[in-house]
Amino acid sequence: MLTEIKGLNEECGLFGIWNHDNAAHITYYGLQSLQHRGQEGAGIVINDGNKLIVKKGEGLVTEVFSKQVIDEMPGHKGIGHVRYTVNGDRSFENIQPLLFHSHTGNLALALNGSIINAGRMRALLEAQGSIFQTTSDTELLAHLIKRSKHPNFISKVKAALNSLIGAYAFLIMTDNELMAALDPNGIHPLSIGKLGESYVIASETCAFDIIGAEFIRDVEPGELIIINDEGIHSEMFAPKEKMALCAMEYVYFARPDSNLRSLNVHTARKNLGKQLAIEAPIEADVITGVPDSSISAAIGYAEQSGIPYELGLIKNRYVGRTFIQPTQQLREQGVKMKLSAVRGVVDGKRVIMVDDSIVRGTTSKRIVKLLKDVGAKEVHVVISSPPIEHPCFYGVDTTSKDDLIASGRTVEEIREIIGANSLTFLSEEGMLKALKQDDSSKLEGACLACFTGEYPTEINIDEPTVATTINKVYRIY
Amino acid sequence: MLTEIKGLNEECGLFGIWNHDNAAHITYYGLQSLQHRGQEGAGIVINDGNKLIVKKGEGLVTEVFSKQVIDEMPGHKGIGHVRYTVNGDRSFENIQPLLFHSHTGNLALALNGSIINAGRMRALLEAQGSIFQTTSDTELLAHLIKRSKHPNFISKVKAALNSLIGAYAFLIMTDNELMAALDPNGIHPLSIGKLGESYVIASETCAFDIIGAEFIRDVEPGELIIINDEGIHSEMFAPKEKMALCAMEYVYFARPDSNLRSLNVHTARKNLGKQLAIEAPIEADVITGVPDSSISAAIGYAEQSGIPYELGLIKNRYVGRTFIQPTQQLREQGVKMKLSAVRGVVDGKRVIMVDDSIVRGTTSKRIVKLLKDVGAKEVHVVISSPPIEHPCFYGVDTTSKDDLIASGRTVEEIREIIGANSLTFLSEEGMLKALKQDDSSKLEGACLACFTGEYPTEINIDEPTVATTINKVYRIY
Amino acid sequence: MLTEIKGLNEECGLFGIWNHDNAAHITYYGLQSLQHRGQEGAGIVINDGNKLIVKKGEGLVTEVFSKQVIDEMPGHKGIGHVRYTVNGDRSFENIQPLLFHSHTGNLALALNGSIINAGRMRALLEAQGSIFQTTSDTELLAHLIKRSKHPNFISKVKAALNSLIGAYAFLIMTDNELMAALDPNGIHPLSIGKLGESYVIASETCAFDIIGAEFIRDVEPGELIIINDEGIHSEMFAPKEKMALCAMEYVYFARPDSNLRSLNVHTARKNLGKQLAIEAPIEADVITGVPDSSISAAIGYAEQSGIPYELGLIKNRYVGRTFIQPTQQLREQGVKMKLSAVRGVVDGKRVIMVDDSIVRGTTSKRIVKLLKDVGAKEVHVVISSPPIEHPCFYGVDTTSKDDLIASGRTVEEIREIIGANSLTFLSEEGMLKALKQDDSSKLEGACLACFTGEYPTEINIDEPTVATTINKVYRIY
Amino acid sequence: MLTEIKGLNEECGLFGIWNHDNAAHITYYGLQSLQHRGQEGAGIVINDGNKLIVKKGEGLVTEVFSKQVIDEMPGHKGIGHVRYTVNGDRSFENIQPLLFHSHTGNLALALNGSIINAGRMRALLEAQGSIFQTTSDTELLAHLIKRSKHPNFISKVKAALNSLIGAYAFLIMTDNELMAALDPNGIHPLSIGKLGESYVIASETCAFDIIGAEFIRDVEPGELIIINDEGIHSEMFAPKEKMALCAMEYVYFARPDSNLRSLNVHTARKNLGKQLAIEAPIEADVITGVPDSSISAAIGYAEQSGIPYELGLIKNRYVGRTFIQPTQQLREQGVKMKLSAVRGVVDGKRVIMVDDSIVRGTTSKRIVKLLKDVGAKEVHVVISSPPIEHPCFYGVDTTSKDDLIASGRTVEEIREIIGANSLTFLSEEGMLKALKQDDSSKLEGACLACFTGEYPTEINIDEPTVATTINKVYRIY
Repeated sequence: MLTEIKGLNEECGLFGIWNHDNAAHITYYGLQSLQHRGQEGAGIVINDGNKLIVKKGEGLVTEVFSKQVIDEMPGHKGIGHVRYTVNGDRSFENIQPLLFHSHTGNLALALNGSIINAGRMRALLEAQGSIFQTTSDTELLAHLIKRSKHPNFISKVKAALNSLIGAYAFLIMTDNELMAALDPNGIHPLSIGKLGESYVIASETCAFDIIGAEFIRDVEPGELIIINDEGIHSEMFAPKEKMALCAMEYVYFARPDSNLRSLNVHTARKNLGKQLAIEAPIEADVITGVPDSSISAAIGYAEQSGIPYELGLIKNRYVGRTFIQPTQQLREQGVKMKLSAVRGVVDGKRVIMVDDSIVRGTTSKRIVKLLKDVGAKEVHVVISSPPIEHPCFYGVDTTSKDDLIASGRTVEEIREIIGANSLTFLSEEGMLKALKQDDSSKLEGACLACFTGEYPTEINIDEPTVATTINKVYRIY
Repeated sequence: MLTEIKGLNEECGLFGIWNHDNAAHITYYGLQSLQHRGQEGAGIVINDGNKLIVKKGEGLVTEVFSKQVIDEMPGHKGIGHVRYTVNGDRSFENIQPLLFHSHTGNLALALNGSIINAGRMRALLEAQGSIFQTTSDTELLAHLIKRSKHPNFISKVKAALNSLIGAYAFLIMTDNELMAALDPNGIHPLSIGKLGESYVIASETCAFDIIGAEFIRDVEPGELIIINDEGIHSEMFAPKEKMALCAMEYVYFARPDSNLRSLNVHTARKNLGKQLAIEAPIEADVITGVPDSSISAAIGYAEQSGIPYELGLIKNRYVGRTFIQPTQQLREQGVKMKLSAVRGVVDGKRVIMVDDSIVRGTTSKRIVKLLKDVGAKEVHVVISSPPIEHPCFYGVDTTSKDDLIASGRTVEEIREIIGANSLTFLSEEGMLKALKQDDSSKLEGACLACFTGEYPTEINIDEPTVATTINKVYRIY
Repeated sequence: MLTEIKGLNEECGLFGIWNHDNAAHITYYGLQSLQHRGQEGAGIVINDGNKLIVKKGEGLVTEVFSKQVIDEMPGHKGIGHVRYTVNGDRSFENIQPLLFHSHTGNLALALNGSIINAGRMRALLEAQGSIFQTTSDTELLAHLIKRSKHPNFISKVKAALNSLIGAYAFLIMTDNELMAALDPNGIHPLSIGKLGESYVIASETCAFDIIGAEFIRDVEPGELIIINDEGIHSEMFAPKEKMALCAMEYVYFARPDSNLRSLNVHTARKNLGKQLAIEAPIEADVITGVPDSSISAAIGYAEQSGIPYELGLIKNRYVGRTFIQPTQQLREQGVKMKLSAVRGVVDGKRVIMVDDSIVRGTTSKRIVKLLKDVGAKEVHVVISSPPIEHPCFYGVDTTSKDDLIASGRTVEEIREIIGANSLTFLSEEGMLKALKQDDSSKLEGACLACFTGEYPTEINIDEPTVATTINKVYRIY
Repeated sequence: MLTEIKGLNEECGLFGIWNHDNAAHITYYGLQSLQHRGQEGAGIVINDGNKLIVKKGEGLVTEVFSKQVIDEMPGHKGIGHVRYTVNGDRSFENIQPLLFHSHTGNLALALNGSIINAGRMRALLEAQGSIFQTTSDTELLAHLIKRSKHPNFISKVKAALNSLIGAYAFLIMTDNELMAALDPNGIHPLSIGKLGESYVIASETCAFDIIGAEFIRDVEPGELIIINDEGIHSEMFAPKEKMALCAMEYVYFARPDSNLRSLNVHTARKNLGKQLAIEAPIEADVITGVPDSSISAAIGYAEQSGIPYELGLIKNRYVGRTFIQPTQQLREQGVKMKLSAVRGVVDGKRVIMVDDSIVRGTTSKRIVKLLKDVGAKEVHVVISSPPIEHPCFYGVDTTSKDDLIASGRTVEEIREIIGANSLTFLSEEGMLKALKQDDSSKLEGACLACFTGEYPTEINIDEPTVATTINKVYRIY
């Protein structure tokens, strides 16, 4: 729901489990805790020893899976997926996990990410006789594995992964093993946990907490994890490159109770807010954060600045899919939808409004107006990340510069559009400093491409939407 | 949903509008903003000039009302209601508003509250030939109005209200007017707003903000507000007694963006938290609040104490009605439902956990365990209200002392049950001081009956569940 | 569904049971077998010894009642109701049974029929202080019972029934007894059965067959049946008048497997068809009936005439509530909805099309066209009842002469409108002769008011829709 | 629904249209008329010129497709499919049509039938690198087309079809054409129609009647029909073998208003009934048919024998998917489900009960008991087809001899099991005679394999379930 406010959508969440009596139930709770990573489709595939049982559908995990459905999915092994639809692609076929049947066994695949050289690889495979039943990048991997001349399955998978360029976290389930693979830059998060005797894999560690599992470690860039009835082992399918974990995971996508590369997301956000208070000290009466993702940064700013943190903005908790959108006329008369400003807190005050990022700017403009409408004397917008000026090709739906208000505009121009008294973005240096600040962090490098335009992989291979050649570089710190 | 965590349920929310082109739409948004006051049933009655159009159902406002339904409710006047089911009463008949048809016109009624002398009055009316089609207290008023010998409708209504003892906020809609009435102690909130040329009535002021209406004033205890095509006027149906607004509205029930008697709820909660920090200074590393209702108090405690406020507890946003409850076995294995503790924030720390109240204690116990399970070194529970030792007879579902952990137990005994390192409740004096603290407040007196056992009305009239005679007194401050 | 084809709607079906372990389940199956009598709403009330459990809703029995709902209705006594909405009255309040609560016990009421003096009685009761919560005639009886000065409940009920004029079959359930009452003319059917040790009441005997119960006898006109834990007994609340069972029950409304006054409906229809063949011998190649209600008459016509009966018209079995109606444009292009003609049977043939009645004529016209479109050389329409020229005031929704094609038109004029090669109606005498023909029949008299305009009760009392004074007479045979 | 009574399921229905403004709507109505051929899943694929729009789901056509869904499927070309699930295969992936994407265009496929050499072909294709995403035979054709070395698409399709052995009616839609192919024996029906300027293809001609289309001709065995914007043309992909249209299509599967090979199904059934009356003259009072599929045969028997046809068995029209099944206990107490016997018609009579076939015998046994329970003096069961002794491998779900009561039992043994006074099956000769009887028929040969064990194709190729070698022969007449 928050994502509807923002217009910035992470595309997927992954969960897998091997060797648990209630594989379907655990996968359900795991996916449920990853719901923020994808709210438009969900799927679970369970292997019951003899066959795959699959259930997929549009909507939230709780909408797709009833108790009856989950109860009818016995089996000890499973993978699940939540997703956004990308580029208006709403065909049911593309809801993951995808299944592939063969007389030698079944294959189930789920992907978080985006393959840069997908178009070229599809053409190549089609020329060799492959038929594609979906338009999903995920299907590529299946054909590449099938086509591989390597002698055993693991070698085939490693070869197939090596053909792909982009950001990808894959779950691969066969009758005999559950595999997890992460691209050589480690652009998306993927972690390993243990629940009793069972191994679990999830996009975020919050899934481990919700099911009572213990965090073991993150999957490394270029690593292929193989879990089977003998246990767990690891192979590198590619030399690890410089880690480039998406910085927006910390800023916005991930749940505050997750740890990414051992750095807690809430703590990271709070540090971003503190750094912002250092970079942009503002005289004001109250601080408020845009719920929910900016609360931590706002608290950090408040702690650093000494200005009191208040609930100046309230999100309506019961606005769901079936909520009736107000007509244009009613909106103009003042009917609010998802967010309202708290007059009792804001009236007559100079307000610092902390947000995590600005994408199109329309939401920021609306919130500034909400605050002024209930009497805010001044509204100072502070953003706990740098301006997003460049599209993402790794699985976030900002694929065009046209949608990005910061692309080609000065901060002052943006300020004027959103109607704030002042506008401050966190600096790139400040962002990196804040993310490095915490002792527990094992973050080695981050993808700042949407801020800097420096992409960690090639991106101009075959996507016609990528017009300009962009060097394969990324910021090192 | 939070209420499910707490086990403390306010029973109703009211909304009414007179003279607006989109009465049904506005009532929908108004009710939606009051959803926290009742999530098990909703109803809207619209008067289209010729007839009443009614739609009621079980569930959330967004579940009962589709766009099509609202669009098919033209008319300029309407009232709506959200409710909890009380005492296992789930019969559809009791979903409000209730309708009464007569050749002289139609009557629609909605009630927030509870009538203490309902049993006696029903028996009296039945003896005179009245038939009851519901078991709701609301129906009483209709029969009393019908039976009244007074010459005009307003006199009838005033006489009928005078026969009732208890806590009640009524909305009354006829073909010619919309009325709002509040019991002489003003136990529940009820406010008047203006939206363009239309008058609106709502249980909380947050409804005005969401529809873009202006707050005019609160309905006074003992007052009957009459809105018709000529405008608005007021009559007293009973002498105003000492105001006794339910203190738990500030502590827990109301939305933080509402103002009750001109005191902002978030601000009130923050002041309760500050007062708690003064009364109970504790040495600790982090402060966390139980979401959502205790966040403000936790921030207040943090501001006063200087100990950092952190997101140590996270509520799962997507857990709704259709969520599959984990089995006992899975729960024992550690599967969480609605709340999870954030290891990255809590591990190794001394934690102050702020909650607004303790009812049965089971939730507190569970949360303390959640925090300890993720590594909290110490958990100090501080409660921003006094112990709830007495049942409520005014519309909150704590009708038996047996359900109240604080009834007949010392604080030390409760602490041991919930497993905290320490437990502190706010004092009654501290609570009153905190609620008086804000300049804007027009609160003249509060009902503290659940803490003190001193009830603002007679309560032992005819309810067999009330065993002991309790004097009609209430705390004055 | 068929009724949608016809535009002639019976309004209700009743079922009651006393003293059965599975009262709710049995009532469900009973109502289900009466579904043809009302498809727009259904309700069941079960008395579990301590309280009433009620479930009502819009739609079919299978839509309103899930297994879970029925399983949650324990109790040994119950009544149920299926209904059509009359006069656009779709308010949920009017779905029956209606419930009335009192400290002396609960009352549940269900009605099949229509009260002629409802308006006058409501005004009278309102003047005495009664409040009506529905616009249903059923509620009248509750107030009349409550107001009655008679000393005991049975006397009150008898007095109340005596105040009512019209056609009514009532089920009345209290904590202590189940009652069934039939108006003095016995206009609607109502029968008594026995299922093991339990007594059951139903609108049609097909309900007994479906639950495995034994038919005992029909309720007599003017009779009040009282079933309680002691057994069953009968009292007359009014002198029985000349029986006037609705003739259209035989012709169209009832299920062919029901017996009305011991006359099987299929047999009656077949006899109507035979009589029609005697009155209207036509030279033709094939006979076809309009499914489903005219099949029996068509078979009778075929048997009598020697012309082969064929399936010339097929009803689409899967067309339900959610069927997408073809647009006007598609209909004009030939898209059919519920009925299609069978070219392989009809092409090049002279066809006798048997239908049971003509109301508006639009359906007949459409079916004639269907048959001609697939090659019928001639279409001879024969109707197994006389022309419907007069409105019904007893619970069938033909309340205005304007809707009746036969009102004010000659048979030749109607023939021209519907485009048939010939059109024949059964004579009134032929109809009565056919209904008397079977030895088993205990039918003493029938209401032919819609054919003759002679109504068995007063009808011009207070209904403004009844413009002309019509003598209280009815046809005797 | 009837199929639930019988336990004999045809697996699929096909519909396709090229060049119509409302392709989705027309396909909806077409599929709807074919609903009897498959009630567990439905799908429509529309080509809007640029892309494929697909919607598939479990359940009836009216359950899968809402008005909104159909309205959101613009485009001029489309194919649709209704299906049964076979062998417990309920995976969503297998709901047809199946889609295949390629940079050279899209392919949509739908199949009615079963491929005998599917296992062998899959293994072969997998060895060449193909990956299967479904377990449906339909997917085979896509891979075979893709793998074909032939120079153009039509040649590829013809070569691919030639690799398949079995019973198949395929619809194939690309961006440029709609194709229809029928196996060389023409085991399943497939017909061509014209609707204005549009060509349509359907499994049965009833679909043409429902949409107002004109029947052109049937697809010939071994024929490939190609429809594109230039018009329609035909090629043979295989030499036509002896036609072997499934005889059970006439007996049971098809709708009575369809013509198969120009022979009307109702007429065919009536002739089967007449032939049965000739072969098995029985002294009795009434004849009744098991609804719905045996009505025509019963009428034929009655016409031939002079014994009156009556509605002795009534099907409950409102029993759908959500109907609550009676518990075993209630069933034993006499609660009926889908069928009830009419006491008023049957009591004291000698009854001839006409049914079209006996599969397991459990239903026949139940119906005989129903009739005897309401007083039938004698029940003579006559079956309008020979005993089903052999499994079907062509798409009907009688895959094991164990399920067939007639397999290995004498007629007298079956009679004893079902409890009838006598039991007669139609002879094979009589069946063929009856099917040849009508002048309009163009039926050249029928598959009687389930009666005779003589299969028109090889069947022992690679299906492990087929234990014995069965010669490739079929009965000639």
